[in-house]
Amino acid sequence: MAESSGEFALIDWIRRNSARQPQVETGIGDDAAVLRFDSGRTIVTADMLMDGVHFRLSESTPESVGRKCLAVNLSDVAAMAGQPTAAFLCLALPRTGGAPLAERLYDGMKPLAEQFNVEIAGGDTNIWDGPLVVSVTILGEPAGVEPILRSGAHPGDWLLVTGSLGGSLSGRHLTFTPRVQEAMALARSASLHAMIDLSDGLASDLRHILRESQVGALIDANTIPISDDVDPALSPAEQLHHALTDGEDFELLLTLSPEQGAALLQNPPVEARLTKIGTISAEQRCLMVDFDGETVELPSGGWEHRFGSTEPDDSPPSRGDTE
Amino acid sequence: MAESSGEFALIDWIRRNSARQPQVETGIGDDAAVLRFDSGRTIVTADMLMDGVHFRLSESTPESVGRKCLAVNLSDVAAMAGQPTAAFLCLALPRTGGAPLAERLYDGMKPLAEQFNVEIAGGDTNIWDGPLVVSVTILGEPAGVEPILRSGAHPGDWLLVTGSLGGSLSGRHLTFTPRVQEAMALARSASLHAMIDLSDGLASDLRHILRESQVGALIDANTIPISDDVDPALSPAEQLHHALTDGEDFELLLTLSPEQGAALLQNPPVEARLTKIGTISAEQRCLMVDFDGETVELPSGGWEHRFGSTEPDDSPPSRGDTE
Repeated sequence: MAESSGEFALIDWIRRNSARQPQVETGIGDDAAVLRFDSGRTIVTADMLMDGVHFRLSESTPESVGRKCLAVNLSDVAAMAGQPTAAFLCLALPRTGGAPLAERLYDGMKPLAEQFNVEIAGGDTNIWDGPLVVSVTILGEPAGVEPILRSGAHPGDWLLVTGSLGGSLSGRHLTFTPRVQEAMALARSASLHAMIDLSDGLASDLRHILRESQVGALIDANTIPISDDVDPALSPAEQLHHALTDGEDFELLLTLSPEQGAALLQNPPVEARLTKIGTISAEQRCLMVDFDGETVELPSGGWEHRFGSTEPDDSPPSRGDTE
Repeated sequence: MAESSGEFALIDWIRRNSARQPQVETGIGDDAAVLRFDSGRTIVTADMLMDGVHFRLSESTPESVGRKCLAVNLSDVAAMAGQPTAAFLCLALPRTGGAPLAERLYDGMKPLAEQFNVEIAGGDTNIWDGPLVVSVTILGEPAGVEPILRSGAHPGDWLLVTGSLGGSLSGRHLTFTPRVQEAMALARSASLHAMIDLSDGLASDLRHILRESQVGALIDANTIPISDDVDPALSPAEQLHHALTDGEDFELLLTLSPEQGAALLQNPPVEARLTKIGTISAEQRCLMVDFDGETVELPSGGWEHRFGSTEPDDSPPSRGDTE
């Protein structure tokens, strides 16, 4: 971590320095961990969200904040094609107004928890003089299919994405429905090789698949599905930039064989839009055919924060899963 | 939560308002949750610790803080007589010095993780302008015995405690060894009815057992084992007060039948001191025979914080498990 001090360097560092345990089938480096206990397997993911970074209580209702804190974790379970089961909720509540705030956060979580059959099964409440911090851990189980990891992409695979991308911070990041059902339906309909949920932006999250699978990719700028939330008055290149880098889309990016991909697109098992945006290549580069038909290096431009950076206060949320 | 706004009211409120799921065998209300997946069971516990509340980075090394964050969670798994397996670590790191701080926190966790065969299997790292927040979730599994809940105490049971109590904040709260091995050894040697780890202080934590088991207790002031960390210059009553209310002892409080209790004390399966401090009664009161031989109501005096209270900055850490 001495040379590169980004978040991913910290993750690598922990990964290198951790003693492995036999029950941990998939540890740091994926959307969630997979543990094997006796004959059962458990999918686990944890996220921490802070006021002023991932949400702003001054601009959003506590209910929408609570909902989001649960939703981003559900999205990580979705990225493994898992069925979520139980959530654990840790709160650092501001000293003033903590009790009604906690109640409203929970009120926002409850409908989503019930929709996905998740029980709030524990946690920890605290009061302090700092801003609200919410940490959610979700456990789930494989939904009749193997957990889909980031590391399974093969050269030749098609790259598919659900929904459309960009502009989430205008509101969708608080209201999105995590793709839990879609992920299970897709994994049951086809042999998915790799999957991730798009939290940091396509350009950044695609790299996680490439790195974990030790492959490259070529995507086509003309095929990237751009959300209606992206200002249509912008130039096509600017719109594309938003779709690639805004983040917080919480859509699924997946890879599978061309045969399975074609079948999936012909008979989609989900109502959500499903788009082929590129292919996986053997050469470990991340390339894009731009609007002029030229092949360029895809700029990552995601949200990887650097320690010690002094970003303006209105910078987008920072995310750094270490699963 | 409208009338009583303490932390435990929040827990009750969540408990009442939560939809239950069949996989959650033990939810909110114990040291940890117990989930049943396929044929396996998973023990889960989560704790959040904040700079200025549960530790002070200005007074403690990051290594000792990291160690404590893991240790308090291990103590919760111990309280279920579980074998810990994997930990998930969420960090909100201060913007300045975040990377070396994270490394040192982790360096403090690592020896303890290895001692108890726990893998850091995932988590989430973030940077913000606030103080350090650490949230740890630990998963474990039953160690060949049923998880020991808070709710199993019977009238007539003996109350036993490991180690000695009080004065932890002078340093032991950063260096204690969680009673993981002791809990498993005790649970294998005797049929334990109820168990909890002492985080908020005996007077407060005993009440959790009484409430969950719907019983009462009578303890004997003369038998409470007082730690050497309690100032011996204090009067016996003052020393007792520390032992009852200081908290952060992370010792085990357990109940079992008199026959099993006597056998356990005669042939203790652990090196740690084991002391009978009282008995469980049917009447739901928490009583103590004081130094004068008089039976008095045991003042709770634990660390339950009230929302909106304005405690001095040197108040002891607040804890509020909702498992």
